[in-house]
Amino acid sequence: MDKKAIILLSGGLDSATTLFLAKNRGFSLNALVFDYGQKHKKEVKFAEKLAKLTKTEYTIIKVRLPWSRSSLTGSAESFPKRLSKSVPSTYVSGRNIIFLSYAASYAESIGASAIFIGAHTEDYSGYPDCRKGFLESFNRAVNLGIADKRIKFHYPLIDKNKKEIIQLGLKMEVPFEFTWSCYKGKKLPCKQCDSCRFRINAFKELGLEDPLLKK
Amino acid sequence: MDKKAIILLSGGLDSATTLFLAKNRGFSLNALVFDYGQKHKKEVKFAEKLAKLTKTEYTIIKVRLPWSRSSLTGSAESFPKRLSKSVPSTYVSGRNIIFLSYAASYAESIGASAIFIGAHTEDYSGYPDCRKGFLESFNRAVNLGIADKRIKFHYPLIDKNKKEIIQLGLKMEVPFEFTWSCYKGKKLPCKQCDSCRFRINAFKELGLEDPLLKK
Repeated sequence: MDKKAIILLSGGLDSATTLFLAKNRGFSLNALVFDYGQKHKKEVKFAEKLAKLTKTEYTIIKVRLPWSRSSLTGSAESFPKRLSKSVPSTYVSGRNIIFLSYAASYAESIGASAIFIGAHTEDYSGYPDCRKGFLESFNRAVNLGIADKRIKFHYPLIDKNKKEIIQLGLKMEVPFEFTWSCYKGKKLPCKQCDSCRFRINAFKELGLEDPLLKK
Repeated sequence: MDKKAIILLSGGLDSATTLFLAKNRGFSLNALVFDYGQKHKKEVKFAEKLAKLTKTEYTIIKVRLPWSRSSLTGSAESFPKRLSKSVPSTYVSGRNIIFLSYAASYAESIGASAIFIGAHTEDYSGYPDCRKGFLESFNRAVNLGIADKRIKFHYPLIDKNKKEIIQLGLKMEVPFEFTWSCYKGKKLPCKQCDSCRFRINAFKELGLEDPLLKK
């Protein structure tokens, strides 16, 4: 069995947990890290740290989206809560579509047959590109658009919530102190953005403190 | 009816013809031009010329594919004929997958409901990402991955051959002297690569000389 895989590594705790899962399943990984103009570019440094720590080869790809209206890539300091009833303002249109497309190109080029992504539905139900239906459909489309035709997307966290992901990560000794979630990307987590709240609450529910806050 | 559309503009004659078709159908266009490390980067200049000539707003996006093994992006001077029985060595893994992903992000962000691509099957049957089945499947997947859900891909040349595309272009007065096809991207077309041969032969079949060769 070919066990070469590409993993999308963001620097957050979901992709970190996915990295450990994939390694434990015996995959040899090449990580893709994206600098897409996110305000919390700091997460790229965390992704690098994690890749080095786990001796995972990684490539940083710059993606420019000059048309983005997301509060995550815009210049506004404030974060409006939602773009519409169902979509948070932090939604970056096409983000996972673009990331997975690069991953498909990379995978086919190096003969990897798997792509790992830490997407999960529950916390970010407002992000259409984190849903299982999209990932399944995109996987099918990608295999029609490459010569290789045998890439399988893996999204092992898809049905888990943040608490379950942290539990899983702790079992595998994921160093969560080397993961970054805050959308603001300042020196310390803001504790107020959606991403901070999900993370801090999940640690709390487990009776733990976020290791990032202990520093 | 919303008539805003994104068009993938490469600088070649297929996308030029598609541009004129879309304009004639009443679409207001925003062009996306990709600098993806192609040897014939010269085509980007031709795409720019054509956009300016037709007063089409355009954005150039840099795409880096450090893993690419394509002879079109590699440093080799020579072009091996094929990578495998069915795939030419000029195949760039994931190219249209990535380009269409950017287009989807752009389209959703500016509220465009259509994406035009000049892909066609006959000449490049070896390119999996130029086939109708892929384009249909990718269109479905993209609509599951965006919040907007109503982008329609248009590939009006899909069933045409080069000769038919040129005939169509001539009717619309597409300035083919401002389109570039040669994979080598030197001062003059090499007349030998697949892309040159298809183009020159098609003009010949119509009893015409490629206007690019008249210069």
